[in-house]
Amino acid sequence: MTLKPFSGMRVVVYGVGTMGAIATRLLVDKGAEIVGAIGRSPSKVGRDLGDVARLGISLGIPVENDANAVLSRGADIAVVCVGSYLSTMRPHFEICLGNGANVVTIEEETIFPWTTAPDHAKALDALAKSNGVTLAASGAQDVFWVNLVTTLLGAVHKVDRVTGHCRWNVDDYGPEVADHLMVCQPKAAFEKVITSDGWPEFVARQTLEALVARLGLTVSAISSDVTAVTLDEPIHSTSMSTDIPPGGMIGTVDRTRITTNEGPVFSFAMEGRVYRPGETDTNAWKIDGEPDLELNCNNANYRFTTCSSLINRIPDIIAAAPGVCSLNMLGPPTYRHH
Amino acid sequence: MTLKPFSGMRVVVYGVGTMGAIATRLLVDKGAEIVGAIGRSPSKVGRDLGDVARLGISLGIPVENDANAVLSRGADIAVVCVGSYLSTMRPHFEICLGNGANVVTIEEETIFPWTTAPDHAKALDALAKSNGVTLAASGAQDVFWVNLVTTLLGAVHKVDRVTGHCRWNVDDYGPEVADHLMVCQPKAAFEKVITSDGWPEFVARQTLEALVARLGLTVSAISSDVTAVTLDEPIHSTSMSTDIPPGGMIGTVDRTRITTNEGPVFSFAMEGRVYRPGETDTNAWKIDGEPDLELNCNNANYRFTTCSSLINRIPDIIAAAPGVCSLNMLGPPTYRHH
Repeated sequence: MTLKPFSGMRVVVYGVGTMGAIATRLLVDKGAEIVGAIGRSPSKVGRDLGDVARLGISLGIPVENDANAVLSRGADIAVVCVGSYLSTMRPHFEICLGNGANVVTIEEETIFPWTTAPDHAKALDALAKSNGVTLAASGAQDVFWVNLVTTLLGAVHKVDRVTGHCRWNVDDYGPEVADHLMVCQPKAAFEKVITSDGWPEFVARQTLEALVARLGLTVSAISSDVTAVTLDEPIHSTSMSTDIPPGGMIGTVDRTRITTNEGPVFSFAMEGRVYRPGETDTNAWKIDGEPDLELNCNNANYRFTTCSSLINRIPDIIAAAPGVCSLNMLGPPTYRHH
Repeated sequence: MTLKPFSGMRVVVYGVGTMGAIATRLLVDKGAEIVGAIGRSPSKVGRDLGDVARLGISLGIPVENDANAVLSRGADIAVVCVGSYLSTMRPHFEICLGNGANVVTIEEETIFPWTTAPDHAKALDALAKSNGVTLAASGAQDVFWVNLVTTLLGAVHKVDRVTGHCRWNVDDYGPEVADHLMVCQPKAAFEKVITSDGWPEFVARQTLEALVARLGLTVSAISSDVTAVTLDEPIHSTSMSTDIPPGGMIGTVDRTRITTNEGPVFSFAMEGRVYRPGETDTNAWKIDGEPDLELNCNNANYRFTTCSSLINRIPDIIAAAPGVCSLNMLGPPTYRHH
């Protein structure tokens, strides 16, 4: 491993919200050269990135709202923390790739975009290849939900079933995410939405598909569902700044199940909800097979480890072959000492 | 990943004790072609390997005691489950390598032989290179004590301290291992041996050195110690077929601590002892840094997972560059579906 892989690396911070601010601080710690910052909020545009990210220092880099202008000045990689779903993010990625910058993003569909957003994925793959750069995603999926599991399976002779459960704190990601999960609304309202509009397969599905692909197995069937989580007692949501009444939505459980042509069955449940005092982010996997095995991480601290995993992945992504590089195509994640 | 990587692979089973018998069954399951078996016990030599390994089938492969004769007939790899320490195992490895066979072994020093057995390691490295083959070790170290930890560290921004503890069941490995740990003897006898003869740095040290090397960090100091484990109540040892009296040795804790030039400090304690009813093999790691993280595996089933990790590693070792390939030089472990 090369120490100081960030030295001399020119990075654009694309998106300066909660996650982009954490990413900025980690990039500064690692010794990357931040050459541009892109934001859209009028309260941030024009201010110094160090100020917006609350670093306590000036970085000499103003937040700008013209992404193309920033990227056209040249960068090795853009760290994109803007939004979810490839349909939303494709124009942002196109600006980066079209200007010859690699992209690492927390956008969750890019973890394995080939089946839920195939047209966007193919178009971005072609654009990345024609510009000789790579688009890849990282986040909590990378270490906790894919690579720890594939590593554990290296000790297994025969897998029958792989079952994962994680819990993440809705209040860690601001009111937009809580609102997206219909936190504070009646369960009946949630069920009406499910019935009328459906619910996008999200994160759990892409994670599990990346895991199966990494193992060299092939999907025979995929099913996903989502259920409401409620509580019989009132609970305070810090992101919504309100008390949720008993029976109100405190979050959801997204589940995906994959059967493979080779036999092993995979399921993953992601419980995103408001926490009671003392609860922490968890990660629990169980292997049924020869032998049965299990793995548990408490205090997984997903908000922070999403950002730290993202930054640690940058040297891998710059070194990767051009194109869209889904998580199954990357090697093991690596600590980057500074 | 290629499915069926064992198809057409010619394997010699070198050592047909408890671990060699498990390895034989796994190799048969994976579809490898076993072309020879080597043992030394007069009770096993001449019998069919399937009989010796209690597979319930004949493999048409007699156990032979002339290793050179078996290896000179040609093999892609020898699976060597014979003994510990490179000083003991070097002649066995030389027969394999000299006959052009790769070697995968559970011999624990080969996990990272460069500092505790440098002369043996260099000689074997030269022999392997001149024959275009690879010598490497796997076992519980591979997945549980190195690769799960390096993977978890992929989510860490800054490491201060990495602390591991595992517990393994002395009774799983027969009377020789229990005797080696002075199980059933008075603590005073153990302490006399420590004082007069010392205690070899073993497993914990090589494991931790491989972990540090894999992270690209460099050692500034290493220290190891061993302490006795006793119990205030009597306990039965199945491997010794005896009750250990209160205060008698039930095992040891081997500890190694490494400080690095870059700052992070690593320590690992291996508690090998007789179990009380209901106790299982454990694996617990704690990261102090940003952020703090932890990882736990209960039921790690080290006797079996040592063998399953060993067999799953074979395709990697055949594909590796010639020479001695310590664990830090191998990529991530992989499940091999059959």
